[in-house]
Amino acid sequence: MKLDAALSSIKNVNSEMEPAIRARLDNLTKPPGSLGYMEDLAARYCLITDTVDPSFGRKRIYTFAGDHGVAAEGVSAFPKEVTPQMVMNMLAGGAAVNVLSRHVGADVHVVDMGVDDPLEGAQGLVRRKIRSGTANIAQSPAMTREEAIAAIEAGIQLAVDAKADGVTLLGTGEMGIANTTPSSALFSVLLPSDVESLTGRGTGITDSGLQRKIDVIKRAIDTNQALCTDGLGTLAALGGLEIAGICGLCIGAAACRIPVVVDGFISSAGALAACRICEPVKDYLFFSHCSDEAGHKVFMEQFGVRPILNLSMRLGEGTGAALAMSIVEASVKIYNEMATFGSAGVTGEKTEG
Amino acid sequence: MKLDAALSSIKNVNSEMEPAIRARLDNLTKPPGSLGYMEDLAARYCLITDTVDPSFGRKRIYTFAGDHGVAAEGVSAFPKEVTPQMVMNMLAGGAAVNVLSRHVGADVHVVDMGVDDPLEGAQGLVRRKIRSGTANIAQSPAMTREEAIAAIEAGIQLAVDAKADGVTLLGTGEMGIANTTPSSALFSVLLPSDVESLTGRGTGITDSGLQRKIDVIKRAIDTNQALCTDGLGTLAALGGLEIAGICGLCIGAAACRIPVVVDGFISSAGALAACRICEPVKDYLFFSHCSDEAGHKVFMEQFGVRPILNLSMRLGEGTGAALAMSIVEASVKIYNEMATFGSAGVTGEKTEG
Repeated sequence: MKLDAALSSIKNVNSEMEPAIRARLDNLTKPPGSLGYMEDLAARYCLITDTVDPSFGRKRIYTFAGDHGVAAEGVSAFPKEVTPQMVMNMLAGGAAVNVLSRHVGADVHVVDMGVDDPLEGAQGLVRRKIRSGTANIAQSPAMTREEAIAAIEAGIQLAVDAKADGVTLLGTGEMGIANTTPSSALFSVLLPSDVESLTGRGTGITDSGLQRKIDVIKRAIDTNQALCTDGLGTLAALGGLEIAGICGLCIGAAACRIPVVVDGFISSAGALAACRICEPVKDYLFFSHCSDEAGHKVFMEQFGVRPILNLSMRLGEGTGAALAMSIVEASVKIYNEMATFGSAGVTGEKTEG
Repeated sequence: MKLDAALSSIKNVNSEMEPAIRARLDNLTKPPGSLGYMEDLAARYCLITDTVDPSFGRKRIYTFAGDHGVAAEGVSAFPKEVTPQMVMNMLAGGAAVNVLSRHVGADVHVVDMGVDDPLEGAQGLVRRKIRSGTANIAQSPAMTREEAIAAIEAGIQLAVDAKADGVTLLGTGEMGIANTTPSSALFSVLLPSDVESLTGRGTGITDSGLQRKIDVIKRAIDTNQALCTDGLGTLAALGGLEIAGICGLCIGAAACRIPVVVDGFISSAGALAACRICEPVKDYLFFSHCSDEAGHKVFMEQFGVRPILNLSMRLGEGTGAALAMSIVEASVKIYNEMATFGSAGVTGEKTEG
């Protein structure tokens, strides 16, 4: 599906349905509202899928991988070759996202959006390489606007494919050494907010490394300022190929009315770009967790979203999405499977004076 | 198992094993510590089960039910007959705890510790009734010390039974109209802290109902002050039969070295009583979530424990335990199933200057 076609088909969810959904939740054998945020998750799942009688099918995580020219600036604790190595680890089922996805019954599809390695013989890899890594954003735009559109459209099409496969809940994930750097740059421009409060230690850099990273991000924003006139331009100038893929998955999911559980810091940058390109996309997103990466909490507060989990995770890959998808699924089961006061013969609340 | 025998067999976990556990976690293909609290959960599971090479078997929730004489004071939004009605709903599989337990693959065993109803024909019910509801704590002790011991020993034996059945992770749950009232009283005496900050709306009482509830709790504490000389005496005087069962399950689990995921507000009161009777029990407990019931956060902070989930739930039954047990299990799978840097051929961190 083309970007224009997707954007023109996205509408806000129909909140007129909400009273009927809440009435059903309040008729289940529990004090009204006593399942808290789970009830909100169930209600939003209904709204997104546009029904008061939802079904739940398959869960799938797309883990998008890409390399970053800005890694050359020494902004990560890990060397760049770890990107393809971790892609191979994920395809072999040994990464954290594999363990957690198996645990919750979700499939993981690993998508090469722009790894700077041919990944020869990588069985099961979804090959959507737009280019072999981005340019160094401290010196030039990460990619052209056309490349960003191609990456987004690859993500959109994966959502369309998922719909055809019976997927009713999507999750995002990513792998790309140095990718907290473009993410912080995107947050800074798109929220907007200051670079310092949005920049953290990623996989674990030192104090001096953190200062260097902040300087690099400021330089990247200065260098690319003229291109950051809209969401798409900012994503192209400061983003990453896997981040653009995530952005596209969110847009495609909204077009297909599939809820998406956004993973952590980097995935949130892709999701934010999607919302800046098309505001109603926000209606279709769940935010899995608040990452321990400094800046994620700033994003959550400023963007006005509530995370499902707070487990001090900061790994990415889709690990937070996997756990949170299971909680969204549990919420839908609450809505669908609990007895009502009437069916179970349970007396309701007393009417107090 | 008798209470004395259980208490004499409980030891603190052996924290000398922790460096070996952490070394293994740090050798998995992820930045050190990047799975945050999940890594702590995995490490604690190892320490509790006293091995660096843990296995994971079955998950079981015991949902203890009991009635409360203090319900006569009008402290709940629901009438007392809801306790046996909800027991029947749970046995039929229609309650929230059933839905969530099925979702995570845990069994639910419903235990009658003191429901004021014969529960005739209740198939699958675990019958451990000590007496038909407690006395009204605003006027007299809830139960005798001997009855409290009998209830605790019933809980201990259920942990022993679970061990024999291959259960490696326990969860607590409860059902008992009015049972936030004795729970707040227990917290107030056992933490200790003031009644106001530990008393909430339970299933949903009004402002005037909340004031009445606070008054009732203060009266209960005044009336029973002379009996509240130790953990056991306080539990007997101010507690509930299902709360004593939870207390016993925690003690029995510690004796059997099975980790327990404590559900919400009421379960925490039972767990706190267990820790006041035998401090090392605390090593064996996970706290599933911070309830929306006012006072639970006060307990968490004052007792120094971190909840796994923060979903604004306040239902009880074992609903929070069910969800959190799945996250503990996921954490153990991370420890057991992830590839290492060596096995996956992934390069480790750069050594920075």
